[in-house]
This record gives sequence, C-alpha cells and structure tokens, in this order.
Amino acid sequence: MKKVGIVDTTFARVDIGRYATERLKECGTGFTITRRTVPGIKDLPVAVRKLFQEGMDLCLVLGMPGKAEYDKVCAHEASTGLILAGVLESKPVVECFVFEGEADDGKELEFLARRRAEEHAENAYALLFRPNDLARRAGTGLRQGFRDAGAVRATH
Amino acid sequence: MKKVGIVDTTFARVDIGRYATERLKECGTGFTITRRTVPGIKDLPVAVRKLFQEGMDLCLVLGMPGKAEYDKVCAHEASTGLILAGVLESKPVVECFVFEGEADDGKELEFLARRRAEEHAENAYALLFRPNDLARRAGTGLRQGFRDAGAVRATH
Amino acid sequence: MKKVGIVDTTFARVDIGRYATERLKECGTGFTITRRTVPGIKDLPVAVRKLFQEGMDLCLVLGMPGKAEYDKVCAHEASTGLILAGVLESKPVVECFVFEGEADDGKELEFLARRRAEEHAENAYALLFRPNDLARRAGTGLRQGFRDAGAVRATH
Amino acid sequence: MKKVGIVDTTFARVDIGRYATERLKECGTGFTITRRTVPGIKDLPVAVRKLFQEGMDLCLVLGMPGKAEYDKVCAHEASTGLILAGVLESKPVVECFVFEGEADDGKELEFLARRRAEEHAENAYALLFRPNDLARRAGTGLRQGFRDAGAVRATH
Amino acid sequence: MKKVGIVDTTFARVDIGRYATERLKECGTGFTITRRTVPGIKDLPVAVRKLFQEGMDLCLVLGMPGKAEYDKVCAHEASTGLILAGVLESKPVVECFVFEGEADDGKELEFLARRRAEEHAENAYALLFRPNDLARRAGTGLRQGFRDAGAVRATH
Repeated sequence: MKKVGIVDTTFARVDIGRYATERLKECGTGFTITRRTVPGIKDLPVAVRKLFQEGMDLCLVLGMPGKAEYDKVCAHEASTGLILAGVLESKPVVECFVFEGEADDGKELEFLARRRAEEHAENAYALLFRPNDLARRAGTGLRQGFRDAGAVRATH
Repeated sequence: MKKVGIVDTTFARVDIGRYATERLKECGTGFTITRRTVPGIKDLPVAVRKLFQEGMDLCLVLGMPGKAEYDKVCAHEASTGLILAGVLESKPVVECFVFEGEADDGKELEFLARRRAEEHAENAYALLFRPNDLARRAGTGLRQGFRDAGAVRATH
Repeated sequence: MKKVGIVDTTFARVDIGRYATERLKECGTGFTITRRTVPGIKDLPVAVRKLFQEGMDLCLVLGMPGKAEYDKVCAHEASTGLILAGVLESKPVVECFVFEGEADDGKELEFLARRRAEEHAENAYALLFRPNDLARRAGTGLRQGFRDAGAVRATH
Repeated sequence: MKKVGIVDTTFARVDIGRYATERLKECGTGFTITRRTVPGIKDLPVAVRKLFQEGMDLCLVLGMPGKAEYDKVCAHEASTGLILAGVLESKPVVECFVFEGEADDGKELEFLARRRAEEHAENAYALLFRPNDLARRAGTGLRQGFRDAGAVRATH
Repeated sequence: MKKVGIVDTTFARVDIGRYATERLKECGTGFTITRRTVPGIKDLPVAVRKLFQEGMDLCLVLGMPGKAEYDKVCAHEASTGLILAGVLESKPVVECFVFEGEADDGKELEFLARRRAEEHAENAYALLFRPNDLARRAGTGLRQGFRDAGAVRATH
C-alpha cells in the first residue's frame, strides 16, 4: 500500500486540495491519502518534509499565489523549498500552483484551478503506479490546466 | 507542553513581536514562549535553527523590510534561509513580513503590521493545536493583515 | 560497466530523450542506460537523486521550458535543484534544456532540440569515458545545438 | 571566553575590517578575535564555515560590492551562502555590506562604511553578550550606517 | 604538499585554464595541480566537489558565460552551486568568470580573460600560502582583470 500526502493552503481561493483528492481516488487503488492544510505556499516545504518523515511515498502540493509581484517571489521561494525537500528525501513532490493572474475572472480561475489540480493528481498517480504511461508520452507537449501544447514535428 | 519561539528584529519599526506574543497567549494554553530579538531579517534563519535545537516545536518570525529594491532582495534571502532552516529541522516556521511600502503612512503601517502579526500568531496556534481549523478553511482565500480575498466560486 | 540515467519530460514538445539515448548508444559501449520520464522540469532533480541512489554514475536530463516568463523561473528552479542533487551525490548531471523561444518555428525547434540533445549526449559520454577529449577542447568555444562560437584569438 | 571571527576582503575600498575590529574591542571584554581576509565577497561563506569549525561563536563579515548590476548579483550569492553557512552551523553571521552606489563620493562612502562597520560590530557584541539590549530595542527602526528610521507610532 | 584543482570548460572561448595554471606555477612551489575540463559552467560545482573528495585543498574554477540574458542566469546558478560545494566541504573555491559582454572585441576579451585568470591564480596561491599578503591588502580595492579601484580615503 503506497502512501500519498496532499497539502493545500487557506490562502488559495479554490478548494483545489479537494479536487485533487477526489481525482486521485478515481485514478485507482493501492494507496492511502493523508491531507494537511497550511496557511500559505511558503509553509508547504516543511509540511512536505514532515509528511515524508511520516512515511509518504509522494506528496502532491497545491497553492494559489496572488497577482502581485511579491506573490511571484513567494512562489519562487516555495518552489525552491519544495525541490529541496524532495531532493533531501529522494521522493517526488508534485507541485500544482495556479496563479491568480492566469485567469480573467473567477469562473475561469475556478475552472483552470480545478482542471490543473485534477491533471496533477493524475500525474501523481502515474508517477507511483504507471511510470510507463509517462514514458509513452515523453516529449508530447502535455500541459496541466490549459490545452496540451502537443508535439512539434520536424515536418511542419 | 509545546514550545514556541518568537523572533523579531531591531530593524522593524513596529513592535510586532509584542503584538504576536500577546495574541498567541490569548489563543489558548499548553505552550511556553521563548523570545529573541536579532538586528535584521537576515539574522532570522540562524536564530530559528538555534531555537529549534533548543527544543522549539514551531517558530514565529516577524520582520519589516524597508522600501528600497535592496530590501526586497534581503527579504528574499531571509525567506529562503527560513525555509531552509524549517526543512532541515522539519518544524514549521511561520513568517510574518510587513514591507514598509505596503502602507501609505505610519498609522496605516502600524495598523497593518499589528493585524498581520496577530493573524500569523493565530495561524501558529492553529498549526500546533488546531490543524482541523486550517483544514476547514482550505481554499477560502484567507489573508493576514489585509481583508480576506475569499473563495472564488464557479458560479460567479 | 558504467550506468547512465536519462530523464525527460511529458511537457517537452520534442522526443529529445529518445534522440539523446540513440546518440549516446552510438558513442560507444561500456555502459547501461536507465530511462525515466517525469511530468515537468521541476520533477527532474528528485528523479536524478533517485537514479544516483540506484547506482547511476551520471545523469543526462532533458527538458523544454515554454515561452512565458514563468517558464524561465521554473527552469531556474529546476537547474538550481539539479546542481543541488549533483553536488550532494558528487556525480555529474548533464542538463540539456531547450527553450521554446529559441527557435522561430516548429521545424527549427525540432532541429535545434535534436541537435542539442545529441551533443549533450556526446558530452555525457566524454565525461564518463573520454575526459581527455574535453581537456583537449578546453577554451575552444563549443556550443550545443547552435554553431560553435569558437576560440577568440589574441591576434584578431 | 567567546571567540569572534572577522572576515573582510581585498576588494573593499575602505578598511572596514579594521574599523569593525577596533569598535568591537571598545565594546567590552570576554572574547578573542580571529581575523581573515579573502579576495572578494563570494569567498566569505567558505571562510565563515572554516572559522566556525575552528571554534568561533560568531562571525562578522564585511564587504563592499561595486556599482554594477553584476555586483548586486554577487552580493546576493554571497548573502545566500552566508545564511547557508550560519544555518548549517547554527551560529550567527553578522553581515555588513556597503554598496559603492550608496554614497555620492569617496568621503561619504568612507564615512558610511566606517559607521556601518562599527554599528554592526556593536550588534555582534550585543548578540553574544547583551541579548537583552537587542530585545529592549525590538521594533524601534534601528539602522546601521544611516540615521535610524525610528519607530512608527499608531498615533502619528 | 598542498593540492590544487583547476577546472575549466569547453564553452569558454579563451584557454583561461592554461593561463591560470601557468601563473599558479610561477607563484611558487609546494603544491600539485589536478586539471579537469567540463562542458559548461553549470558542470563546475559537481566537478569541484569531486575534486575536494579526491583531496584537493582549494579549487580554482574558470568560465566564460556568453552575452545573452540566459547566460547570466546560468552564471548565477553556477556561482550558487560553487558556494554550496565550498561551504559543504569547508574549502575555498576561487571563481574566475569572464563575461563575453565585458569586452568590446576579441582581442580585448582575450587580454581581459588572461589577466583575470592570472590574478585569480595569484589569489589562490595567497589563500593557500600567503594569507598575510591578503590581510595586508584588506580594503585596498583590488580588482582582477581590470585596473584596481584602489582605496577610498576619508580625506578625498
């Protein structure tokens, strides 16, 4: 039985932790989920390391940085810390960040955030249980949340 | 009995360490507080790691970077170091930074700084004693200091 | 027998992992290849550290960041993490990144990506088996993907 | 008997290491000083870690980055490394950087550099011997080199 | 007998590794040199850590980043990694980077690169064998490659 940690924030404006959890459960079985919520994205790296030390095999983290320039700096700091936590533990951290400025209005933001959370949940499942699914799609221009970019062909 | 470290700076222009301490005590019992003051925000990461090695379960750090471009760089360096210290110790570091440029005058700055310090103190309490309070508010757009952004609804 | 890890992404729009693998095999013998595919470039550092812990002597990682400003930030975070993983393990990580904005159209992008992947594969081979080939070409202005810049002469 | 390391650079244009050393000695007794000089600010983090491993309780480092954009990048890299060294050793690193662009002419630069070095030396002394002095001045807007910003009052 | 590692790149357009090696030998005796060449500057941190683990007392690394904005990012990543490697090993890493944009033409670039490489080699020698030479020149505004800036006097 694999163990998956899911961490989200009270700062996020969409309940992306729930969407990710629901989609992950739909992907298959063979794993348990431990959920945590922290205030903001800068709290994610410590939460992830703690979860790994409690035995998680993978962590899926979800955050929604705001629109300001400073929010981008915070996201950068959080990402750097998440990579640090992952590298120190040698365990995958699937990061799902949705920036408020990526969508024009609330409806679009909710749609984007949900879809991205679900697609990252699918990636988390593939990393743990279906690595060959990822290998088959290597270099095919997959995107999470937005439409896939697709592969570029030499014959274009 | 949990142990909380609170670290602030002589650089800050508001006594946010005191506001945070007072609010934390109002939140409940079951913890002791150890306070430290360092010169500036770049001194916070080392102070935090020392406090963790003295047995703290969580550190709440408070700083007020100035208005200049260089102050933003210092804040970025301090944040990166705080995440490093937290990840190395696997213990939460609640960071409360108030940038001088966030408010138009001294009165507003004092108000913002106090409120943010108090709300981060509440988050620190929740992380230690009421994780379910955080989980219940996942994805609801909470903010510290300013008005909450609130949740974005798909039906907007 | 040396062991080489090759990691690419599903985000990339060209199958650069395959080009690198094919070229590496053409370079010579004396090594086995383990391939992995992860969703995006930020997942590379953890994948690399895991591969080193499975016994790899060198990892060749390939990614294609998008055109947006945020993609550059992600590439920076990934590179920082790759250097961290390499330094912690004291093993070389050959990074081959192709930015979508480096080429004007799909055809050119495919050509550039393939050539860069192949030339980095040659570098990976040289690092493991022909260090003197690198030493002989020290300071000669070699480039991967684009035309070599060449050496600058004092007598120009 | 406490041990203090002081490190400066040959790149700096003012003998700030000497000013800091003299002021530190004036602050009191109960400590020995070990001085080192390295070429530039990027050499400071390693020098600091070595000094800690030789038994220092605190390191005071002094540097003067130039005016160019690249000098700011170097200062950022040095600061990040200094925080890393401090966090790994759990010992305070008091960083005193004076940017050449902070003053209009040589005389002003010399004055600023000297004063900042002296005030950081006082902070170093306080961190080791008078932590209560720092605590008493928490949130009072102290600055090193320039005039103190002072506390912001709610009643302004 | 001290051990010095010298690492350069095939990306560089001037044979700065050779210039540094020759000058280092002219500085004196009492050390052996181990040379390595890697493809680019991002490969330097791992090479340095490996050399330290093979017993080097100091590493001198030389690179020539290109003119593009991305080259600056790579240089920043490489520098951060070099500081990390040095701090983890507590051994000095003398970094000599020459940016292609620092000179107007090839002749000037060659001249600058050679001179900077030689002066950094002298610094490496001083760090190992003549620390007092550095101490004597503290705060005197030394530069590598370009003319020394010199000390700023209070009486200017």
